[in-house]
Amino acid sequence: MPDTTTLTVQDALLTLQKFWTDRGCMVVQPFNTEVGAGTMNPATILRVLGPEPWRVAYVEPSVRPDDSRYGENPNRLQQHTQFQVILKPDPGNPQELYLESLEALGIDIRAHDIRFVEDNWAQPAIGAWGLGWEVWLDGMEITQFTYFQQVGGQNLDPVAVELTYGVERIMMALQGVAHFKDMVYAPGITYGEAFGQSEYEMSRYYLDDADIQTNRDLFERFTAEAQRLIDVRLPVPAHTYVLKSSHAFNVLDARGAISTTERAKAFGTMRRLAREVSRLWVERREELGFPLLGADLPPMEGRALMPPSQGVEVTPEAYAAELASLAPDVTRRLALEIGVEELPPHVVPEAIEQVRTALTQKLGATRLPHGSVVVQGTPRRIIALVDAVGVHEPDAETLRKGPKVAAAFGPDGAATKAAEGFARGQKVDVSDLVRAEFDGVEHVAVRVAETGRGVLEVLGSIIADVVAGLRADKNMRWSDPELAYSRPIRWIVALWGDTVVPVTVSGLRSGRTTYGERTEAGPLIEVENADVLLPKLAERDFIVDPVARRESVVSQAKSLAASVGGAVDVEGEAALVDEITHLVEAPHGILGSFEERYLELPEQILTTVMRKHQRYLPVRSGDGALLPYFVTMANGECDDDLVRKGNENVLRARYEDAAFFYAADLKVPLEELRAGIAKLTFEERIGSVADRADRIRDVAAALAELVGLDASEGATLARAGQLAKFDLASQMVVELSSLAGFMAREYALKAGETPEVAAALYEMEQPRTAGGPLPASRAGAVLALADRFDLLMAMFALGAKPTGSSDPFALRRAALGVIGILRSQPTLAGLTIEQGLHAAADQLRQQGLDVSAEAIADAVEFVTGRFGQQLREEGVPSTLAGAVQPLAGTPGKAEVALRDIETVRGREGFAKLVEATQRITRIVPEGSPAAYDPQVLREEAERELSVALETIPDLSGAALPEWAGVAVRAVPALERFFDEVLVMAEDPALRAARLGLLQTFVARAPRGIDWRALHSALAG
Amino acid sequence: MPDTTTLTVQDALLTLQKFWTDRGCMVVQPFNTEVGAGTMNPATILRVLGPEPWRVAYVEPSVRPDDSRYGENPNRLQQHTQFQVILKPDPGNPQELYLESLEALGIDIRAHDIRFVEDNWAQPAIGAWGLGWEVWLDGMEITQFTYFQQVGGQNLDPVAVELTYGVERIMMALQGVAHFKDMVYAPGITYGEAFGQSEYEMSRYYLDDADIQTNRDLFERFTAEAQRLIDVRLPVPAHTYVLKSSHAFNVLDARGAISTTERAKAFGTMRRLAREVSRLWVERREELGFPLLGADLPPMEGRALMPPSQGVEVTPEAYAAELASLAPDVTRRLALEIGVEELPPHVVPEAIEQVRTALTQKLGATRLPHGSVVVQGTPRRIIALVDAVGVHEPDAETLRKGPKVAAAFGPDGAATKAAEGFARGQKVDVSDLVRAEFDGVEHVAVRVAETGRGVLEVLGSIIADVVAGLRADKNMRWSDPELAYSRPIRWIVALWGDTVVPVTVSGLRSGRTTYGERTEAGPLIEVENADVLLPKLAERDFIVDPVARRESVVSQAKSLAASVGGAVDVEGEAALVDEITHLVEAPHGILGSFEERYLELPEQILTTVMRKHQRYLPVRSGDGALLPYFVTMANGECDDDLVRKGNENVLRARYEDAAFFYAADLKVPLEELRAGIAKLTFEERIGSVADRADRIRDVAAALAELVGLDASEGATLARAGQLAKFDLASQMVVELSSLAGFMAREYALKAGETPEVAAALYEMEQPRTAGGPLPASRAGAVLALADRFDLLMAMFALGAKPTGSSDPFALRRAALGVIGILRSQPTLAGLTIEQGLHAAADQLRQQGLDVSAEAIADAVEFVTGRFGQQLREEGVPSTLAGAVQPLAGTPGKAEVALRDIETVRGREGFAKLVEATQRITRIVPEGSPAAYDPQVLREEAERELSVALETIPDLSGAALPEWAGVAVRAVPALERFFDEVLVMAEDPALRAARLGLLQTFVARAPRGIDWRALHSALAG
Repeated sequence: MPDTTTLTVQDALLTLQKFWTDRGCMVVQPFNTEVGAGTMNPATILRVLGPEPWRVAYVEPSVRPDDSRYGENPNRLQQHTQFQVILKPDPGNPQELYLESLEALGIDIRAHDIRFVEDNWAQPAIGAWGLGWEVWLDGMEITQFTYFQQVGGQNLDPVAVELTYGVERIMMALQGVAHFKDMVYAPGITYGEAFGQSEYEMSRYYLDDADIQTNRDLFERFTAEAQRLIDVRLPVPAHTYVLKSSHAFNVLDARGAISTTERAKAFGTMRRLAREVSRLWVERREELGFPLLGADLPPMEGRALMPPSQGVEVTPEAYAAELASLAPDVTRRLALEIGVEELPPHVVPEAIEQVRTALTQKLGATRLPHGSVVVQGTPRRIIALVDAVGVHEPDAETLRKGPKVAAAFGPDGAATKAAEGFARGQKVDVSDLVRAEFDGVEHVAVRVAETGRGVLEVLGSIIADVVAGLRADKNMRWSDPELAYSRPIRWIVALWGDTVVPVTVSGLRSGRTTYGERTEAGPLIEVENADVLLPKLAERDFIVDPVARRESVVSQAKSLAASVGGAVDVEGEAALVDEITHLVEAPHGILGSFEERYLELPEQILTTVMRKHQRYLPVRSGDGALLPYFVTMANGECDDDLVRKGNENVLRARYEDAAFFYAADLKVPLEELRAGIAKLTFEERIGSVADRADRIRDVAAALAELVGLDASEGATLARAGQLAKFDLASQMVVELSSLAGFMAREYALKAGETPEVAAALYEMEQPRTAGGPLPASRAGAVLALADRFDLLMAMFALGAKPTGSSDPFALRRAALGVIGILRSQPTLAGLTIEQGLHAAADQLRQQGLDVSAEAIADAVEFVTGRFGQQLREEGVPSTLAGAVQPLAGTPGKAEVALRDIETVRGREGFAKLVEATQRITRIVPEGSPAAYDPQVLREEAERELSVALETIPDLSGAALPEWAGVAVRAVPALERFFDEVLVMAEDPALRAARLGLLQTFVARAPRGIDWRALHSALAG
Repeated sequence: MPDTTTLTVQDALLTLQKFWTDRGCMVVQPFNTEVGAGTMNPATILRVLGPEPWRVAYVEPSVRPDDSRYGENPNRLQQHTQFQVILKPDPGNPQELYLESLEALGIDIRAHDIRFVEDNWAQPAIGAWGLGWEVWLDGMEITQFTYFQQVGGQNLDPVAVELTYGVERIMMALQGVAHFKDMVYAPGITYGEAFGQSEYEMSRYYLDDADIQTNRDLFERFTAEAQRLIDVRLPVPAHTYVLKSSHAFNVLDARGAISTTERAKAFGTMRRLAREVSRLWVERREELGFPLLGADLPPMEGRALMPPSQGVEVTPEAYAAELASLAPDVTRRLALEIGVEELPPHVVPEAIEQVRTALTQKLGATRLPHGSVVVQGTPRRIIALVDAVGVHEPDAETLRKGPKVAAAFGPDGAATKAAEGFARGQKVDVSDLVRAEFDGVEHVAVRVAETGRGVLEVLGSIIADVVAGLRADKNMRWSDPELAYSRPIRWIVALWGDTVVPVTVSGLRSGRTTYGERTEAGPLIEVENADVLLPKLAERDFIVDPVARRESVVSQAKSLAASVGGAVDVEGEAALVDEITHLVEAPHGILGSFEERYLELPEQILTTVMRKHQRYLPVRSGDGALLPYFVTMANGECDDDLVRKGNENVLRARYEDAAFFYAADLKVPLEELRAGIAKLTFEERIGSVADRADRIRDVAAALAELVGLDASEGATLARAGQLAKFDLASQMVVELSSLAGFMAREYALKAGETPEVAAALYEMEQPRTAGGPLPASRAGAVLALADRFDLLMAMFALGAKPTGSSDPFALRRAALGVIGILRSQPTLAGLTIEQGLHAAADQLRQQGLDVSAEAIADAVEFVTGRFGQQLREEGVPSTLAGAVQPLAGTPGKAEVALRDIETVRGREGFAKLVEATQRITRIVPEGSPAAYDPQVLREEAERELSVALETIPDLSGAALPEWAGVAVRAVPALERFFDEVLVMAEDPALRAARLGLLQTFVARAPRGIDWRALHSALAG
C-alpha cells in the first residue's frame, strides 16, 4: 500500500476543479447518461457551438464497453475518469494555464520532461475535428489538448480549447503504481477497493452478458426518440437520446454483435442525428438571442505570461526621427522570430522553407539593400536572419503610361482631349508629359518619383505578409481574428539592429521579447538587438539550427548507447531521428533501460512500441541484436533520474500490455482469429475485413492460375489465403496496427504452420513503405498483389479515387506496391495490371458490388500511371522511363526491358540502331502494314535494305539484346536508305512498298519499346 | 444580479466535498444513469448493505420528471442537485459533523435557528426505511438526515447515516434570491443561464413530448435485463437497469400514461428486483470476503465533541471508600439526565412518563431510601430528580425454604437425608436449620443475611435498566451495539449528590458532563452536583419542565401577537402548541409577517401551510380574521432579524407556490379535475381514486334509498357524488393533502356549484379527526358514510384488517367516523352498519373484487366494536355503554336510547323498573315464549302481575320513556311476584306459565337495551 501522504485520486480531482474555477471556469457535473468521453457531455459538445463564450471544467467517468477487461488489465478500464476543460474562446495562453494546473497537482514541471506532441482529433461521425497535441509527461500521454475547429459539421467561431486529462494515467504515474487497482483513491481505500467490483461486473455485462436483442431494440428506440425530439425542436433531450443510442451501439459492438451492414447503418443514423442536433442547438440559441453573448468572462491570466504580442502598437512614424538621423548607407541585421505553439515535426522544415522563400522573394521585390537570408527553426519558433539590411530604399523614378502619342497630339501638335484628360488625371500640366516607348509603341507619360521607403516600413509590411501567409497541410484557427496556421502563432520578435520593426498582423504585434521554456521560472527574454537573438536562445540550450540539432540528437544518442556497449542505427532510424529533431528545441538525451525478460517478445513488437508510441531510439549490440536499453530525447534540462524512471515506467507498462496481448493471442487458434476479423469493418460498402480476406484469397487463386505456381507454392498460397489477415483480430495488432503481417508470421509459426505459409502471410503486407522490401516468395507476392488489386478495384468501384489532396485509402501506395512487386518477380512478369484488376473485379461482383467497366479502366489507368512515377522516384531518367512506358501495363516486362536496355546500351552500334529504328517510327504512320512488294522497289539502297531484312527474323517477342545483336547488322543499310531514298514517293505503290519495308524492320523488333524515347535517353 | 462576492453554487459544492473528504469520506461521481435521488446511486443503496464500513460524499443531480415545471416555478425543478453523504457506521457525532459542514458553507450557526425536525424516511418499494429529521434553517428544510435501518428488506448492521443536502434550497437562502434561476452558479453566470434551457427542454420532454409507447417498451426491456443480470449474479449492472426502469416509469408517470393496473404491476416488479439486487450484492460481497471489512477508517472528530460518554469506566468499587466514610443516614439527591438526539415531539412526554414509571417502580423494588421522583424533559434530554436517596440499603434477613419439617426429621427427630442435603447445599450445618411456615406449612429453612447494597450500585443498575428499556412507537438502532430507541441516546449524566453514579449500558458510560446547544462555542457543561443540573441548564435558557416550557411558548406567542394588535388562539391551536413545546428546548418566539395580498387566498390554505409545514402560530384579529403575521418559536437565542427574514422567505415561497397552484386549479373545469383522479392510485388491488369515487357515488345513492332523502337533498347528493374527490387531482391538494375537502368546497363554489353541493363535498371528509366536526347536512353525511363504508369494506375484502400495531389505512378512524355520523344524524338513525357495508360490498363486487361473506361479517364486527370504544373515549361509563350495546349495529338508535336513558333515569320508579326487568332477564332463559296460560297461575301475586300486564301494551318498538311511563305501574306487582312466587315450580305447566308471564313483560319493553347493564349503570 502506498503511504497516505500520497496525493489521492479524489484530491487530484478536487484540485483540478479548484484550479480551474479559480481561473473562471464553471464546474458542472458528469452527465447522467453513459458517455464515451467528456467531449460528449452537452457542456462540451453543444456549448462549443455558436458564438457564446463558455468556460467549463468537470469530471467525466467515461464508459467504453470495448475496453472492458474484467479489471485485469493494469491500464485499461471500461470506465475511466476524464477531467475535461473547455475554454471558449481560446484565452490565448491555454498551454501556460495547463502547465500551471500540473503544478497545482504537485508536478514539478521543471524537473519533468513535458512535451506537446502532435495529435489531432477527428470524429467524422459527428462532423468534428480539431488540431492539437497529446501532452507527454516523461513519455506518457496524460492529456489530450485540442483546438476544436468544427463540430456537428459547423465551423467553430470562436474556437474552443479542449483539455482532457487522463486521470488514471496521471495518478498512476504520480503514485508510482503499476496497476490501476493499486492507486490510492481516497485515504485508506484503493481504486480497486472502490471500483473493482463494478469494473468486473460491468465488463461481464459488456463482454458476456448483455442481451443482444435487448440492446438492438434499445438502439432502435433511442434513435427514433432522438429523431422525434429533433422534429419538435428539442436539442437537449435529443442529444441525450443520441448518447443513449451510441452507448447501446457500443454495448452491441463489445458483444461482437454488430454486422458490417448494421455498423454502416448505425453510423449513418448517429451521424445524421448528431449533425441535426448541433444545427438545432445553434438555431435555438439564436432564437433565445444567444443569452451568454454578453457574459463578462474574467481574464485568465496564467503565471507564465506570453510575450507581449498584444503590446502597444508601434508605428513606423515613431521611428522616423531615429531613421532620419542615420547615415543613408547604414545597414543592420534583421532578426525575425515567429513564435508558435509546438508545430508537428513534419511542419518545422516546411515552415523554415516557406519563410525562407517568402522572405527572399518579398525582399527581392523591394529596393531595400540586404544581404543573405538564413532561416532556421524549432517546433516553437521560426527564425530568419537577414544581414546588412539598409536603412532606406533608394529613391527611384518611374513612368506612368498615357495615351499613344498618335492619339495624344492632334495634327497641329496640340494636345488632344485624351492627353489633357490624362494630364488632369495625373494632376500635372500637359506640358509635363513626356514621351516614352512601351512595348515598342510611343506613348505620352508622366514621370513619377518614388521616394524610397524606410527600412521599418518595408520590413514591417513584408513580415506581416510572411506571417499571414504561413500555411501547412492542415491549418487551424485560434483566438486570433484572422490568422490560420498549423498551430497558433503567439508572438513575433522583429529587430532591425536594436530597433523593433513594427509589425501588425491581425491580433499580433511585434516586440523584442522572446519566450524560453514555458516551465522556466522566468521564461521571457528581452532581446537587445538582432545579433543577440540566437546567442540568447543558445544560452538556454535551444539549438535553432535544425542541422545542428539533428547532430546533437545523433551524437548524444550514440554516446549514450555506447555507455552501455551498444549503438544506435542512425541510418536505419533516419526518419525517427528527423522526427525527434523536430520534437524538441533543446535535445537532452536520456538513456533508459527495460527488463531483459521483455527481449523474449518478438523484436518487432519492442521496436514498434519504441518508435511509434514513444519515439525512443532502440539500442543494439554490435551484431545488431536488441539490447534492453533505449534513448529518449527530452526537451531541455530536467531531472534525468526522474525522467528516466518515468519513461521506463511507461515502456514497462506498454511492454506489459504487449506481453499480455502476445500471450493471450497465442492461446487463440488461428481459425478463431480468422473468424474474428468478420467483426472488423473495412469500409462500410464493401464489407468486413473477412469479406476482403475472402476476396484476396480468391483473387490470389485466380492470379496463381495465370502465372502458374508449382504444386508446393500452390499449397502454400492456398493455406496462406485461408488465413489471410487473420492477425488483424489479434489483440496485439488491434493495439499496434503496424504489426499486421509481422504478427501473422509469428503466430502462424507458433501455431505450426509451415515456414512458407508464415512467410507468405508476412510478405503479403510488403512493401510496407515506398521502396521497402518486397515479397521474396512467389506465393507471398501473389497474395500481396491480390491484396492490393482488391483494394484498388474496390475503391475505384465505389468511386473513391484519390484526389490531389486526398488519398485516405492510400491507393497510390497500393498501386506502387503492385508495380514494385511485379517488377521484382521476373517469373510473374507476364501478369498484367488489367488482369489483376479484372480478377479483383470478378470477386467484388461475386460479393454483390457493382463494378463498372469504366471503373476498371480508370483503375488500370491509375495504376499504370504510377509506373512512371515509381521510376522517377528511383531516379530513372524520364526518357528512359518513357522508353518502356508502353509496357507499363506489365511492369514485369517493363522491368525486363529496362534491364535489357542497360545491357545493350553500351554495345557497338546499338545507339545507331535505336536512332534508325526511332526514325522509322517517326516516318511511318501508325498502322502501316509490315509488308511490301519487293518488286516495286527501285533504288539500290532500298533493295539493299530489303536484302538485309531477310537476315533478321521476327524477334518481336524476343528480348532486346537478342534482336539488337541481329538487327544491328541492318544499320548500314538503314542509314543508306535514309540518305538516298525518299520514302514519300509520289507513286503510291512505291510509297507503300517503302513504308512496308521500313515497317517490316520495326515489326520484327521487340514490342513495348518507345523508340523515340529510347533514342532520347541514349542521346541524353 | 447578485454581487460576485456571493458564495456560488459551485463553490458550495466544492466546499462540501472538501469538508467531507477532510473528514475521511471518499468522493465519488454522480451516477451515469438518471437517478431520482442520491440514495439510489450504488455508492449509497448498495454500499449501506452488509458489514463493510463505507464513507462517501458526492453530488447527485437528481431527476424527477414529475417535478418538471418548464423552469417557471421558482422552487421546483425536474433536475435538482443533492449533496449526499453516507457515514457507515454512524460515527457517533453525525449531527455535530453536519453542523460544522454548514459552518464551512459560511452559515453562522449561532445566528440562525437550526432545528432537527422529525422526518422519517421509508421507501416501501425497495423495503427501505430509516428514522431521522429534516434539518431546518430558519424554517426551511435544507437537509434530510436519516439513520438507515433497512434497505432491500435487509436490516442494516452497522447502521448508516445519510445526509442529503438540498443544494438549491440552501443556496437560494444563502444568496437571498427568490427564483432558482437567479442564483449565481459560478462567477458571472447564473443557474438559469447555465441550466435554464435544459430545464425547459427536459420539462417539455417529460410533460409533453416523451413518446409513451417507446418508454413503455424501454421499461419492459430494462426490467427484463435487470432480471437476467440477477439470474447471472451481477448485482451492479442489474442495479443500473433497475434505475433505468425506474426512470422510464417516472417519465411515463409524468406523461400521465400510467394506469392503475400498470402502476401496480410496475411497482411489484421494481420492488422485487430491488430486493433481489440487494440480497445478491450482500451475497457477492460475502463471497469476496467483505474486502473492506479491514479498512482502517480514520476517526471523524468534529469540532463540537460529544459529552464524554465513552469515558473511562468508573466502577462502584472506586467509590467504596468514599461511601464507607459517610454517615449511614446520609441522603442526597439523584440527578439523572439521558441525553438524546432530537426526539419527535410526541415522544417527549411519553419518554418522560416511561422514565418516571420505570424509575419509580425499580426504586420501589429496592430497599434504598428515597424521596419523590420528578421527571421532566426536552427533545434532547430526559431529566429525573430523586430527592433524599440514602447511602445504603438497610441490611435485611430472609429465610430460604427447605424441605417440609415432616420430611426433614425422622420419627426419631434426627435430620433426614433430605434435611442434610439441603443444609449441605446451603453450606450450613444441619443444626443451623430453623423452622418456618411457608403458605401454611412448616418447613425447615436457613436464615440468609442480605447486606444492603450501596447507593451507587443500586442506582447504577437501575439507571442502566431504565436507559436500556426506553422504547417508542418507532425505534431505531445507531452506533451503539445494543441499544434501540426513537433516536440515538448519546450521553448520561448521573449524579448522586456530587458523585457520579457509575452507569454502564451497552456502549454508554455515565459522567458529569451535559451538553448545551450544539451551536454554542463551548457546548459542554460540567455539572458539579445533582442540585446544579437544572440551574445550569436554566442558565442556558433551557426550560426542562414541559409545563413551564409550554407556558413560555404561550406567553411569548401572545405577547408577540399583541404587539401587532393580534392574538393567538391558544386553545384552538392546542395540539400545535404542544408540538412546538416539544420541538425546542429554549423557546424563543419571533414574530414574522407576510404580504397582505396572500390573505386573498382561502384561509385554510394559509393556516395549513403555517401549521403543517412550518409549525407557525397564526395571528388573528379580535374578530378572528387572519392577520398577515405569524409566530415561530426558535430554539434559543439567535439573530432575530436574520431568523425572521429567513422564515418570512420560506413562507413567502410557500405562499407563492400555493397562489400558483390555486390560480392554476381555478382554470381547470371540475369535470377535468374529476377525470384526473383516474391517474391517482388508491390501493393497487382496488383501483384508482376515480374507481373509489365512483363506488362512493353509488354507495351513497344506495344509502339514500334506504334513508329516504327529499328531492332537493337527492339532487345535491347526486351532483356531489359525481364530483366526489375531484379536488385530489388539484395541484393544491396534491401539494397539501390535508386540504382535501376544503379545496373541493372552494373550487366547487367558484365553479358555480350550489352551496349545498359544495358543502356536501366538504362534509364528506368529516370528521377529519377523532371528535372533529361531523357533516351538517344529510347529503354530506350520506357521502361521508359511503366514503367510509367503501374504505372499510374494501380493506376487509382484501384481508387488510388493522392489527394491534398497524392500521395503515386508518380503518379505526373510518369506523369511528361511521359511528359518529350515524349517532349525530337522528334522521339516519335507522341505517345499520351492516346495510352500509353490504352496499359497499355490492359496488366492490361490481368492480370485480371478490368480497366474501366472512369479510362482510368481520367488517361489521370491527365497526360495531368501535361503538363502545367511542363511548368510552367520550367518558360514557362502560355500564351505560353496555346498556345500549345491543344497538351498536345501529348507532343512531343506540344514541337515541342513550339519550332516552338520560331522560328517564331520574324519574320516580325507573330504577326499580329496570331492576325488576333485569331480574327477569336473569331468570328467564333466553328464547322462552312470551305467552302463558293465565288459568294455570295459582298464586295471588302472579295473578296480580298478570292483571297488571294487561294495562301494558306492546311497546317493544317505542322509545324507552314511553314504555317506562306505562310499565312503571307494574313495578309493585313485579316486586310482589319475586317476593312470593317460586318461578321454577316443579310442575312443568306451572313453571312454563310463570316464565311466560315474566317474558311477556319483557317482550313489551323496548328492544335493544341490555337491562342488566342498565341496572348496573343506574346502580353505579
